[in-house]
Amino acid sequence: MRNFDEKNITDAVIDRLEYARSPRAKQISASLIRHLHDFVRDIEPTQAEWEQAIDFLTRTGQMCNSTRQEFILLSDALGVSMLVDAINHRLPGTATETTVLGPFYVQHAPEVPLGARIAEPDEGPPLLIEGSVRSVDGQPLANATVDIWHADDAGLYDVQKDDTKLSGRARVRTDAQGRFWVIGAVPAAYPIPNDGPVGQMLEAQGRHPFRPAHVHFMVAAPGHETLVTHLFLADSDYLDSDVVFGVKDSLIEVLGTAEPGQTPYGATVESTMPVLRRDFVLGPALSVASS
Amino acid sequence: MRNFDEKNITDAVIDRLEYARSPRAKQISASLIRHLHDFVRDIEPTQAEWEQAIDFLTRTGQMCNSTRQEFILLSDALGVSMLVDAINHRLPGTATETTVLGPFYVQHAPEVPLGARIAEPDEGPPLLIEGSVRSVDGQPLANATVDIWHADDAGLYDVQKDDTKLSGRARVRTDAQGRFWVIGAVPAAYPIPNDGPVGQMLEAQGRHPFRPAHVHFMVAAPGHETLVTHLFLADSDYLDSDVVFGVKDSLIEVLGTAEPGQTPYGATVESTMPVLRRDFVLGPALSVASS
Repeated sequence: MRNFDEKNITDAVIDRLEYARSPRAKQISASLIRHLHDFVRDIEPTQAEWEQAIDFLTRTGQMCNSTRQEFILLSDALGVSMLVDAINHRLPGTATETTVLGPFYVQHAPEVPLGARIAEPDEGPPLLIEGSVRSVDGQPLANATVDIWHADDAGLYDVQKDDTKLSGRARVRTDAQGRFWVIGAVPAAYPIPNDGPVGQMLEAQGRHPFRPAHVHFMVAAPGHETLVTHLFLADSDYLDSDVVFGVKDSLIEVLGTAEPGQTPYGATVESTMPVLRRDFVLGPALSVASS
Repeated sequence: MRNFDEKNITDAVIDRLEYARSPRAKQISASLIRHLHDFVRDIEPTQAEWEQAIDFLTRTGQMCNSTRQEFILLSDALGVSMLVDAINHRLPGTATETTVLGPFYVQHAPEVPLGARIAEPDEGPPLLIEGSVRSVDGQPLANATVDIWHADDAGLYDVQKDDTKLSGRARVRTDAQGRFWVIGAVPAAYPIPNDGPVGQMLEAQGRHPFRPAHVHFMVAAPGHETLVTHLFLADSDYLDSDVVFGVKDSLIEVLGTAEPGQTPYGATVESTMPVLRRDFVLGPALSVASS
């Protein structure tokens, strides 16, 4: 119960979990203690390095506000977010693959009608974003909610520019045939915010802070696993070095060209513009906890 | 370079460290990634649990201010601080053992003359704190600096009560025979601050937040490893369940009784009072980095 040394302290700390409030709290705590102590024994930090770690974590927390989540950036940049995503989405092979949520998702984005223009004229060339939502058995899913958000052609999200005015972001509902369309803007590749501790970490690690150009989607329908994913633009830089490890081949799309008239997804196009098109497939709901 | 899954993502993240700014940055980052990913694979967090972890870390950072360091508390409560302490103090057998610094150390505490009263009358019964400082070969170390800080008899440190007025805290210098003495107050056992995220963690882990009664010391002399330690009061509760795992048998002292007159340490006592007495032994300086 006393006299802990480098070797016996780990079991001593874990022994204190005897009266943990739940088996899960005990399991998570014990695993955290074991892996954290193994990490410390592995690197043998000096006192000064330990102080730097305390300072890094403190500054990371203090960088967070209503539009900046530095700990999510940290999780993303260390590959943890993609790992958690993979663990939680062992989906049937035909369902659309998932990727990270990222720090720029806004809950309760305004619902807009199909065909709405969701980006301002100065945010980049218009981009038709259209597609459909189906279940793995091919059934179209009507009235599914599709959250769409993307950076502008300077690589910035709305919340990074003005946290009171949303743009490049909206929620639509699929029509009776499971189809949706909106007009956004062609997004650019961009660096994750790198003026804080995570930017300093990337610099120390010799890494660039860029993500390839992409559009985010969150697609939800009752009885189905909510799909959180991106579509990446095939001609973007950084597809092979995404700072958050989010790229999957199945999520890369070559932009097409929509000609004036009506598209197969019910979109009405007035002038020629690039189009990002995808038929999303939702897997069945896995569980209450992860849905 | 893409298509990362639960198994291959760890090596993929580590591969990105190729251009790390220093071998040490690369080593620490690679070890962090490996152990953090192993932890995640072990517990398989749900998305909701991952969000709770992000929120916990964010709140821990935001709880920190000039007199509260919640990440040090977290490190202490998970046994990490004592582990780092052990790794950095593989001292010769005769040197005084070390323990955690704790979050209440104040740099540049005022230097006071030997014999000063360092606690206010309302902070508890007077306690004579006296001792000596020597090197492992028995040489007394004159002019060594001895930082002393302790909680009051309600278990509170000065900075927890009023961050502009120091008490129960001072720095003295040893006399020509390596001796020092001050008059403080008998400290009480106390809970670490538990109104924040660390308190919530301890509750989930079914642990009490208490530390046994103790007095902190930081003893420094040129050419010697700076000693950071406590002396624990032998009659205190919690000696076998210190929330930060800091107790070592060699650091427990039974309070003696000082009678009016002069003590062997040069202290002049006017009325009978309890005395905490220790001959500290400093090991030789280990290195620049850890001294």
